[in-house]
Amino acid sequence: MNFLFYIVPAASVIALFFAWFFFHRMMRESEGTVTMKEIAQYVRDGAMAYLKQQYKVVTIVFIALAVFFAILAYGFHIQNPWVPFAFLTGGFFSGLAGFIGMKTATYASARTANAVSKSLNSGLKLAFRSGAVMGLTVVGLGLLDISIWYIILNIFITGPSESQILVTITTTMLTFGMGASTQALFARVGGGIYTKAADVGADLVGKVEAEIPEDDPRNPATIADNVGDNVGDVAGMGADLYESYCGSILATMALGASAFFGDPDGQTKAILAPMCIAAIGVVLSIIGIFSVRTREGAGLKQLLKSLSIGTNLSACLIGVITFAIFYVLGFDNWWQLSLSVISGLAAGVIIGKVTEYYTSHSYKPTQKLAESSQTGSATVIIGGVGLGMISTAIPVITIAVAIIMSYFCAAGFTFDPANISYGLYGISIAAVGMLSTLGITLATDAYGPIADNAGGNAQMSELDPKVRESTDILDALGNTTAATGKGFAIGSAALTALALLASYIEEIKIGLVRIGTTALHIGDRIVDVTTASIPDMVDYYQLNLMNPRVLAGIFIGAMMAFLFCGLTMNAVGRAAQKMVTEVRRQFREIAGILEGKQRPDYARCVEISTKAAQHEMVFPSLLAIIAPILVGVILGEAGVIGLLTGGLGAGFVLAIFLANSGGAWDNAKKYVEDGHFGGKNSECHKATIVGDTVGDPFKDTSGPSLNILIKLMSMVSIVMAGLTVLIHG
Amino acid sequence: MNFLFYIVPAASVIALFFAWFFFHRMMRESEGTVTMKEIAQYVRDGAMAYLKQQYKVVTIVFIALAVFFAILAYGFHIQNPWVPFAFLTGGFFSGLAGFIGMKTATYASARTANAVSKSLNSGLKLAFRSGAVMGLTVVGLGLLDISIWYIILNIFITGPSESQILVTITTTMLTFGMGASTQALFARVGGGIYTKAADVGADLVGKVEAEIPEDDPRNPATIADNVGDNVGDVAGMGADLYESYCGSILATMALGASAFFGDPDGQTKAILAPMCIAAIGVVLSIIGIFSVRTREGAGLKQLLKSLSIGTNLSACLIGVITFAIFYVLGFDNWWQLSLSVISGLAAGVIIGKVTEYYTSHSYKPTQKLAESSQTGSATVIIGGVGLGMISTAIPVITIAVAIIMSYFCAAGFTFDPANISYGLYGISIAAVGMLSTLGITLATDAYGPIADNAGGNAQMSELDPKVRESTDILDALGNTTAATGKGFAIGSAALTALALLASYIEEIKIGLVRIGTTALHIGDRIVDVTTASIPDMVDYYQLNLMNPRVLAGIFIGAMMAFLFCGLTMNAVGRAAQKMVTEVRRQFREIAGILEGKQRPDYARCVEISTKAAQHEMVFPSLLAIIAPILVGVILGEAGVIGLLTGGLGAGFVLAIFLANSGGAWDNAKKYVEDGHFGGKNSECHKATIVGDTVGDPFKDTSGPSLNILIKLMSMVSIVMAGLTVLIHG
Repeated sequence: MNFLFYIVPAASVIALFFAWFFFHRMMRESEGTVTMKEIAQYVRDGAMAYLKQQYKVVTIVFIALAVFFAILAYGFHIQNPWVPFAFLTGGFFSGLAGFIGMKTATYASARTANAVSKSLNSGLKLAFRSGAVMGLTVVGLGLLDISIWYIILNIFITGPSESQILVTITTTMLTFGMGASTQALFARVGGGIYTKAADVGADLVGKVEAEIPEDDPRNPATIADNVGDNVGDVAGMGADLYESYCGSILATMALGASAFFGDPDGQTKAILAPMCIAAIGVVLSIIGIFSVRTREGAGLKQLLKSLSIGTNLSACLIGVITFAIFYVLGFDNWWQLSLSVISGLAAGVIIGKVTEYYTSHSYKPTQKLAESSQTGSATVIIGGVGLGMISTAIPVITIAVAIIMSYFCAAGFTFDPANISYGLYGISIAAVGMLSTLGITLATDAYGPIADNAGGNAQMSELDPKVRESTDILDALGNTTAATGKGFAIGSAALTALALLASYIEEIKIGLVRIGTTALHIGDRIVDVTTASIPDMVDYYQLNLMNPRVLAGIFIGAMMAFLFCGLTMNAVGRAAQKMVTEVRRQFREIAGILEGKQRPDYARCVEISTKAAQHEMVFPSLLAIIAPILVGVILGEAGVIGLLTGGLGAGFVLAIFLANSGGAWDNAKKYVEDGHFGGKNSECHKATIVGDTVGDPFKDTSGPSLNILIKLMSMVSIVMAGLTVLIHG
Repeated sequence: MNFLFYIVPAASVIALFFAWFFFHRMMRESEGTVTMKEIAQYVRDGAMAYLKQQYKVVTIVFIALAVFFAILAYGFHIQNPWVPFAFLTGGFFSGLAGFIGMKTATYASARTANAVSKSLNSGLKLAFRSGAVMGLTVVGLGLLDISIWYIILNIFITGPSESQILVTITTTMLTFGMGASTQALFARVGGGIYTKAADVGADLVGKVEAEIPEDDPRNPATIADNVGDNVGDVAGMGADLYESYCGSILATMALGASAFFGDPDGQTKAILAPMCIAAIGVVLSIIGIFSVRTREGAGLKQLLKSLSIGTNLSACLIGVITFAIFYVLGFDNWWQLSLSVISGLAAGVIIGKVTEYYTSHSYKPTQKLAESSQTGSATVIIGGVGLGMISTAIPVITIAVAIIMSYFCAAGFTFDPANISYGLYGISIAAVGMLSTLGITLATDAYGPIADNAGGNAQMSELDPKVRESTDILDALGNTTAATGKGFAIGSAALTALALLASYIEEIKIGLVRIGTTALHIGDRIVDVTTASIPDMVDYYQLNLMNPRVLAGIFIGAMMAFLFCGLTMNAVGRAAQKMVTEVRRQFREIAGILEGKQRPDYARCVEISTKAAQHEMVFPSLLAIIAPILVGVILGEAGVIGLLTGGLGAGFVLAIFLANSGGAWDNAKKYVEDGHFGGKNSECHKATIVGDTVGDPFKDTSGPSLNILIKLMSMVSIVMAGLTVLIHG
C-alpha cells in the first residue's frame, strides 16, 4: 500500500477527535433554567424515542437485505461475497453518524438559547460548532469505513494480476455505499415525514385556527415540531450527505481503477487521489470551522459573512491544494485533473448562490411572490410553483457545464470516445471536489435546526422576548444556510449518481465474467470482457438511446421520481391530518390549555408523529429498492441504464424545483411578517401561511428524499448487476 | 404512385365534406332569445378579436422563420430547399383548422343552450356534432396537406435511385410538421394563458371575494372566461392534435422509407401504411360520430355511454381493419405490424381510463382529495400534488409497455439491433394507431367547451334554471371527456416525439451528405452515410448514454420542461392579477354592477386577456424554438439527442402530473358542491376553490403546453439538423 494512503485514516481520526472536542466543549456550557432543561429533555426524549423506533424498522430491513445478498453471493454465486458485510458496515456507520449528530443537536439547543441570552456571538459559535460535530462525524466515519475496507480487501483479495485486484477491490468497496444509501433512505423519508407531519399539523391548528404564535407552549404539537427538526434536518441530512460523500469517493476509485487498467501504478494513483482530496478537505474544513468567529455586537449580515468566510476559505484552499495533490501523486495531467475538481467546487458554490437568490427575501423573486399574496392564497401557490420551476434553469445549466468541463479537462481536452474513461473519472472527481469540504458545509447546515430549536426553547421557556429576537436572527441565518445546503446536497447527489451510473458498466462486466461470459459481441467486434476497458464498451448496445429498452427505462425512471415524491407528499398529508385531529382533540378535551393554565400532552403528539412516520415510510422506501431490481429483471441492463438516466434527469430537476418553491414560500411568509403587505395577521399573511404549509413537504420531505432516490437506485442497480446479467446475459 | 395512395385525398375530402355538413346543420338551428344572441355575439367577437391578434403575432414569427430557413437553404445550402414552403403550409393549415373549429364552437354554444331548453338529447347531439366539425377539419386538412406535398414532391424530387428519392420525399415532408408545431405552440401557449387568466381572474374576484356564482352576468370577466374556453380548449387543443396527427404519420413515413432502404417496393408499402390507416380511420370516425345518439330521457351515465360507444366502436373497427390494410399492402409480417398498431390504440384507451379514475369524483382519489379540504386549503394543495404525481405511474408504464410491444412485434419478436429500423417503425406506427380515430376523439374533446359555453350563455341570459341544470349535466360530461382527452393528447405526443427522435438520425445523415461527408467513423468501422441504414448507425457515439454531451443534454432537456412550465405558470399568475385589478376597479367605479342594474364593461376584460396573453406568450414560445438550436450549436448532435430524450422523459411525466392534479382539484370542488363536506359556501368549499384555481394553469396552460414543447423541440432539431451538422460535422 502506498504510504500516502495513511493520511486517510489519519484524517478520519483528526475529524473524529475534533468532533469529540466540540461536543465536549458544548457539554460544559450551562443548559439554563429548570424550564429550559425540562423542554430540552422533552425534545431529547422524543428524538431518541423516534430514532429507536426507526432503527428497529431499519434493522429488520437490513437483516432481510443482508440475508438476500448472502443467498445471491453464497447460494447462486452471482454476487460479490463481501457485499453482505460491506452493506452492513455502510448502514451502521451512517446510522451512527446520524445518531451522534442528532444527540449533539438536542443537547446544544437549550445551551444555545442560554448562550444567546448572554451574547449573540457566543450563541452563534456554540450552535455552529455543535453543527460541526455532525459535519466532522460524517466525514470522519466515512473515511474510517473507507480505510477499514481498503485495508481488509488489500489483505484478502488476490487475483491473476495486480490490475485485476485493484478493480475488484474498488468495485467491492463501492457496494458498501448500498448500506449507506438504504440507511439514508429511511432517515430522509422517515425523518422528512415526521418533521413535516408535526410542522404542518402544528401550523394548521396553532397558527391558522387558534391563532397562537409558532412554538407557543400551549400548542400540543410544538415539541413534536422541534423533535422533527432534529430527526429530519439533522439526522436525515447527515445520512444523505454521508452517502454522497462515500459514494462519490468510492465511485471515483472504481472508475480510476478501470481507466488505468493494465497500469497498476496509474491505478493506484487514481485510487488514492479521491481519498487524498477528501482527507485534505477534512483538515481544511477544521481550519474553516475555527475561522468562523465575529466581533462582539455583529449584526446578521456580518454573521452571514463570517459563515461564508469559513466555507469559502475551505473551498479556495482545497482548490489550490488539489493541484499539489495531483502533482505529488505523479499525474502527468495534474493540472487538468485539478481543473475537473475545481469545476465541481465551482458548481457547488454557484448552485448555492442561485438557491439563495431564488429563496431569500432579500431578492426580487421572493418579494414578488409575497406581493402575489394580495390576490389570495391561490396566486401565492401558482407563483411559488412557477418560481420553483424557473429556478431550475441555472443550477441545471451549471451542472451541465460542470459535467462537460470536468470530462473535457480530464480527458485531455477532447471528447474522443477513446479517452472516455479518463473523462468519466473527471466527472466523478468533480463530485469529490464538490464534497471535499463537507465537514464545514454540513456544519452550516446542521447549525440551522439547532438555532431553530434554540428559538423554540426560548419561546416555550418564556424567556425574555429579547432572547427570542436574538434566536430569530440566528434562525434566519439558519434558513439561508439550509436553503443553500439543500442546493448543495442535490447538486452533489446528481454528480455522485452520474459517477455511479458510469461504474455500473464495470459491475456488468464483472457480472458477465462471474457467469462465465467472457466474449461479448459489441457491434461487429468481439470484446474480451475480462480485459475490456470502457472505450471498448462504448458501442455496447445497452447504452444506446435508440434501444427501446433504454427508452422505456428512461420513461419509467422519470416517473419513479414523481411517484416517489407523490407518495411521500401524501404521506405527509395523511400524517399531518392525524396530528391536526389530535391537537383539536386536546384543545377540546383538556380544559385550560389555551389559557396557559394546563400543559398539553406533548408526548402523545410525539408518539403520533413517530408512528405515522414509521408507518408511512415503508412503502415508498421499499419501492425505491425494488423498482431497479424489477426493471433489471424485466428489461435487462438497458432498462436499468435508462431507469437511472431518466430518474437522474427528472429527479434532479424536480428536487431543485421542490426545494426552491418551498424555500421561497417560507421566506415570502417571513417577508410579510416583517411588515410588508399588511404584516402579521393580515389577509396577505394568511395567504403566505398557506404557501409555507404547502412548501413544508416540498422542501423538507419529498425534495430531499429525491437525492436519496437517485443515488439509491444506482446503488441497488450496481449491487444487483449480477442478477440482471444472469437473467439477460 | 401506388393507386392505394388516392384513398388519402379521398378521405380528406370526405372528412371536410362531413365537417361542412355538420356545420351547416348546426347553423340551421335557432340561437334562441335576443339576449342569448347578444351574449353569443360578445363571445364570438371576443374570440375573433383574440384570434386576429394572435395570428398577427404568429404571422410575424412565421415570416421571420421562413426567411431564416430560406437563407439556410439558398444561402448556405445546409437546409432542404422545400422547407420554407413546407413550413408555411403546415402553419397555415393548422391555423385554418383552429379558426374553423373555434368559429363553429362560438356559433354552437347558444344553439346548444337553446336546444337543451327543448330536450337534453338534442342539445348533446348538437354540441357533439359541432365538436365533430373540429375533429373532422383537423384530420381533413391534415391529410390534405400530406396529400398535396406527397404529390408535389413525387413530381419534383429526382435522384440517383428510387430508394433515395423516397427517403428524400419523406424526410422533406417531415419538416412541414415544424410549421404545424410552431402554430400549435402559439395556439396552446397563448390560448392557455388567455383562458386561465380570465378564468382565474373571474373566480378570484367573483366567486371568492364578491361571492357571486360562476358565469354570473354581473362579473365583468365572465365573457372573457367564455372566450377563453374557445381560444384555449378548442383552437389550442385542435392545433396541438393536428400537429401530433401529421407528425406521427410523417415520422412513420420517413422511418418506413429508411427501414426498407434499397427495396423501393417495401418502402412504398411502408410509406403508404400510415397514410392508409389514417384515411380509413377518418371513415370509421364518421361512422362513430353518427352512432352517438340516445333515446329521449337518457341520464348522464347513459350519455357518457353513448359517447364511449362512438369512440370505442371506431377504435375497435380500426383495430380489426388494420390487419386487412397491412395484408392488402402485401406485408409479410402483416399481423405483427397490426399488433404494433393495436399496442398504440390500447395504450390510448388505458391512459384515458386511468385519467378518468384519478380525476373523476366517482372514484376514491378525488373523493379523498375533497375530504382533505376539512383541514384547509393547504392540505388540498398538498393532496392534489401528491395525487397528480402518483397518477403518473400507470400511464407511464402503459407507454413503456406500448413502446416495447410495438417495437418487439414489428421487429419480428426480437430486440436484436439488426432489426432496429423495423422496431422503430413499429413504435411510430403505434402512434399512428393511437391517433387514427382522432376525428371522433377530438370531437368528444371540442364538445366540452361548447357545452361549457352553453351553460355560460344560459346563466347570463337568465334562462330558466332548469336549462342551466341540463347544461350542467352536459358540462360535467364535457369535463370527463376533457380529462381523458388530455391524457390521450399527452400519450400521443409522447409516441410522436419518440418517432421524431428516431427520424432525427435520418436528418443527420442527410445533413452529413449535404456538407460532403459521406464516410463516417463509427466504432472501428467506416460507414457510407449515403446508404447507411439505422442498424449501421446504431453504434454512433452521439447516441451513447456515456457521451458527456448526451448526459448534459438530458439534464438540460428535463430542465426545459420545468422552465417552460414555470414561465407559462407565472404568465397566468401575472395576467390573472391584471384581470383581478380590472374587475375590482369595475366593481368599485361602475355603480350598480353588483345589484345587476348596470352591465359591466365586458370588452375591457376581453382586451386585457388578449393583450396579456399575447405579451406573455412570446418569451416561452421563442425559448422553445431557440433552445434546441442553441444546444445543437454548442453541444452538437449528441447534445440535441440528449435534450430531446430528457425533455421527452421529464416533460411527459410532468404533463400527466399537471393535467391530473388540475382535473382532480376541479372535480373535488364539484364533489363538495354536490353537497359533501358541507356543500356550497362551506369552509371546505372555499378550500377546494383554492385547489381549483391553482389547478387551472396546471391543467389548461402549462400541462398541455408541454405536449407542444416535446414535439416542437424535436421538430426544430430535425429542421436545424443541417446547421448542427455543419458546425460539428
